[in-house]
Amino acid sequence: MPDVSDDHRPRPTRLRIALDAMGGDHAPDMVVAGADIARERCPDVDYLFVGDEARLQALLERFPALKPISTIRHTPDAVPMDAKPSVALRTGRNSSMRLAIDAVAAGDAACVVSAGNTGALMAMAKFVLKTLPGIDRPAIASFFPTIRGESVMLDLGANLECDADNLVQFAVMGSIFSKSVLGLLEPTIGLLNVGSEEQKGHDSIRQAAAALRQTPLAKNFHGFIEGTDIGAGTVDVIVTDGFTGNVALKTAEGTAKLFSEFLRRTFASSIMSKMGYLLARGAFLKLKQRTDPRRYNGAMFLGLQGVCVKSHGGTDAVGFANAISVAVDLVRHGFNEKIKDELARLQAALQTAETPDSSQAAAV
Amino acid sequence: MPDVSDDHRPRPTRLRIALDAMGGDHAPDMVVAGADIARERCPDVDYLFVGDEARLQALLERFPALKPISTIRHTPDAVPMDAKPSVALRTGRNSSMRLAIDAVAAGDAACVVSAGNTGALMAMAKFVLKTLPGIDRPAIASFFPTIRGESVMLDLGANLECDADNLVQFAVMGSIFSKSVLGLLEPTIGLLNVGSEEQKGHDSIRQAAAALRQTPLAKNFHGFIEGTDIGAGTVDVIVTDGFTGNVALKTAEGTAKLFSEFLRRTFASSIMSKMGYLLARGAFLKLKQRTDPRRYNGAMFLGLQGVCVKSHGGTDAVGFANAISVAVDLVRHGFNEKIKDELARLQAALQTAETPDSSQAAAV
Repeated sequence: MPDVSDDHRPRPTRLRIALDAMGGDHAPDMVVAGADIARERCPDVDYLFVGDEARLQALLERFPALKPISTIRHTPDAVPMDAKPSVALRTGRNSSMRLAIDAVAAGDAACVVSAGNTGALMAMAKFVLKTLPGIDRPAIASFFPTIRGESVMLDLGANLECDADNLVQFAVMGSIFSKSVLGLLEPTIGLLNVGSEEQKGHDSIRQAAAALRQTPLAKNFHGFIEGTDIGAGTVDVIVTDGFTGNVALKTAEGTAKLFSEFLRRTFASSIMSKMGYLLARGAFLKLKQRTDPRRYNGAMFLGLQGVCVKSHGGTDAVGFANAISVAVDLVRHGFNEKIKDELARLQAALQTAETPDSSQAAAV
Repeated sequence: MPDVSDDHRPRPTRLRIALDAMGGDHAPDMVVAGADIARERCPDVDYLFVGDEARLQALLERFPALKPISTIRHTPDAVPMDAKPSVALRTGRNSSMRLAIDAVAAGDAACVVSAGNTGALMAMAKFVLKTLPGIDRPAIASFFPTIRGESVMLDLGANLECDADNLVQFAVMGSIFSKSVLGLLEPTIGLLNVGSEEQKGHDSIRQAAAALRQTPLAKNFHGFIEGTDIGAGTVDVIVTDGFTGNVALKTAEGTAKLFSEFLRRTFASSIMSKMGYLLARGAFLKLKQRTDPRRYNGAMFLGLQGVCVKSHGGTDAVGFANAISVAVDLVRHGFNEKIKDELARLQAALQTAETPDSSQAAAV
């Protein structure tokens, strides 16, 4: 088997990415094909495929440029897409998902990408990689199109209930995430609420707003935002609990589908409108490309001691390649190191803001 | 001033509606003009305008058919759009909003419509009208377009935190609401959650699901739904807490705006696509009509001893007329009486479902 570690050319910046080759509706085919697409975009990356060796070997034969930068780690086990997280954690010790995460923990890979069962991936990643110092709970983040460009939202479902500390930590991670992946210099942050006035919302949100105003993030903290601000792109980073974030993201997806269906019916409603579609077709194909869900494929698990990206289970090779790109971006930008630095700055600021006799209590 | 109570023609089914004539960005003009539009749709309705008499008199002169079925109750006070609910409740005893609600409590009007400050309207309506027996908290409900037709969602912001009993009561009210306003015979009900599996979500949602399965609503209870199901129209009635419902509704609004903007840019992007728009224009105007927010204007306060409808603050006469229609529909269908009957049936069912020794605890 080709393994880059035996290669003696000087490649100081190469990194290896572990892929759960058996996760996702179209695995392992789309995983291997996705890696081949990502190969062109991320030239200094090697691949560790974890899964059924015979099938992966056969697939790699089809991609002659990918094969020499690929390694296979064999396992016959895979986590079922409908497995309960607790069951997967207990019984999936030899699964492709678990071994791919183990590779990151062991330093064999810089990051892991899986299109498998989300709950199982989060449970395993938390158990194996542990959270970063200063982060109580990891969060799931993703980015999506807005009128102004692109925004990041977190948490999308890892934590159904969040306290003010969790939300502040999500703000830190979301801010660094949008710097690393979207390339923003000073991303603005908003807390998702039912109104923009100060007295609105749950206690945890109001306490998080007060705490953020004491931190170095204060200058980029926009305050409360509402659901309408998500599509408007009012802020770059939308911070919310996992229940609300999950509902908001899926509601936006559902509304986009509704609108597409209305659009289809509108164009199909008469001969004139069908001709209109033919004329505008080129522009609509561009719009379709711009809003292609595969472009926004890749939900990041932030706050772990290791980069872990979840690809959509139903995605194809193009979508999986995008998830790989996001993982590589996070590693290349030293995402986790930046989070540690920012949390240290934040903790110092919060301690300074406290009165001397209560400084003990301010320790995160 | 013409007052229908002095009119001796036999009009057994006429009803009078109280209008907060000073609430909303374009009040009182759009309130009076809206009533004139509603007059044609709801022939047996009289209007009680509460607000500045001189301005209202002058406006009514412009609508000769509306004038004879209108009464004015003068007050110089109005609730500011940005007033805190608690302040409005304390200081707004002589406001147009409060006096319009008082008219319902006194039996002078069958229902009230206001385009004023939502929080103030809810606070005053709760204080003056009180909740229905068996309803712990009123909810805000609204309907909106889906791929399958139209659905109702509640609560949209009256109660940020809800327990299982609240959610069950919302399900009852939402079901009767969609029968009354959308004319559905057996509306299906879904609880908004982060997944459809039984173990998902907050305790309150899981307990509400278990309770609903014990009630006469069980046969129409679909179980958990996700954000994507809102636009898909998977169920007719979407039940959720006020925080989540508010975020979901506004996220859908924002996504619809985002999509409209993408559409505008797409058609404007080339000569060809501009020509395409000209051909498809007729179909797009129909789509615009179908998704016109004014069609969906009117958030209902359900669970009060009196029908209270909140119109969007920025609406025009057409939107306000729709809010009036919804209020009239609710009164004509005996909405509140039906809620009382259904709650009695539900309570009986829940008590039967309990073991004899725990039947005390099952009393709502």
